[in-house]
Amino acid sequence: MLIAERGVGSVGLSEITEVADLGAGTFYNYFQSRDDIVEAVAEESVESLGAALDRLTADMPDAAEVFGYSLRHLVRQAITDPVWGWFVVRLGVAHPALIRILGPRAARDLRKGAESGRFSIADIDVATSCVFGALLSTLHQVLSTTVQPDIDSVFAQTMLCMVGIPADEAEDIASRPLPALSFPAAPST
Amino acid sequence: MLIAERGVGSVGLSEITEVADLGAGTFYNYFQSRDDIVEAVAEESVESLGAALDRLTADMPDAAEVFGYSLRHLVRQAITDPVWGWFVVRLGVAHPALIRILGPRAARDLRKGAESGRFSIADIDVATSCVFGALLSTLHQVLSTTVQPDIDSVFAQTMLCMVGIPADEAEDIASRPLPALSFPAAPST
Repeated sequence: MLIAERGVGSVGLSEITEVADLGAGTFYNYFQSRDDIVEAVAEESVESLGAALDRLTADMPDAAEVFGYSLRHLVRQAITDPVWGWFVVRLGVAHPALIRILGPRAARDLRKGAESGRFSIADIDVATSCVFGALLSTLHQVLSTTVQPDIDSVFAQTMLCMVGIPADEAEDIASRPLPALSFPAAPST
Repeated sequence: MLIAERGVGSVGLSEITEVADLGAGTFYNYFQSRDDIVEAVAEESVESLGAALDRLTADMPDAAEVFGYSLRHLVRQAITDPVWGWFVVRLGVAHPALIRILGPRAARDLRKGAESGRFSIADIDVATSCVFGALLSTLHQVLSTTVQPDIDSVFAQTMLCMVGIPADEAEDIASRPLPALSFPAAPST
């Protein structure tokens, strides 16, 4: 299996669905439909990405860098794997799994910045919800229109302004080289 | 008909659907299904609200007030008419009608603020898309959880920060008394 070989974070969703189509007999013992498979894999992929962002940013002292790098990786993931991106967009702002996976992580990063005085945020829950909606809408733009190659930086800059970082500084932080994510190798079975 | 009597902007979507259920025979001559009716009325209602915001803000000199009041009225509309709010949330960030109706208006207001130097925006299209997504996500929060009574102001404050207004000033602008909208009487038929 692709996921077992390479870890879910490094396998494109389009590859998964191709394999799922080929091996339908086995898959449908566990899932009601092809959509269920894709939804389960997409959720697992969002969770895997969230965990990789946690590892990347855990020791970073600046909340603004943590927030900016995380948002940029989420946008880059949709560019690298458009099937994943479309699925996240289609799940939408009301989907419980996306809110459950991404909401607490975003709230944690925003709270860290607010408590240290780095960010200026009227309400953590409202800001979290705004980041989430802005992300999905930006992914939709990325997938359906021609966008500038540094769209991930422009989006991060916009969100850094939203949490009170001055425009010049937001631009500087959002245009720094993006550190790579690492995904652990899956245990051999 | 309610719409003809009072104008679409002043009729709750829940009232429309009640009438639609009662007079199903007539309605289904024009619409494929109840969902089509609700979608058409919801779109008309968004358009009507957009036009009312245009009238309210046309002569306001401060782009920050224009932007803030418009966002607050959109949030208030979902509180006043939750059926409308849910429908807008369900249409989602990828829905062409919502993008067509709200996108150009938001872009116009943001451009006005950017050109006058009032706002500091990295990219108008990205900011427009972020406002749109943040609005839908906030409407979802308003409709599905208990939110503070001044949620419209908190949301507007958050978005004013996003376009580069300093936090203190954004809070001041977003907490001013909200001017009422006016809807023209529908022509008698």
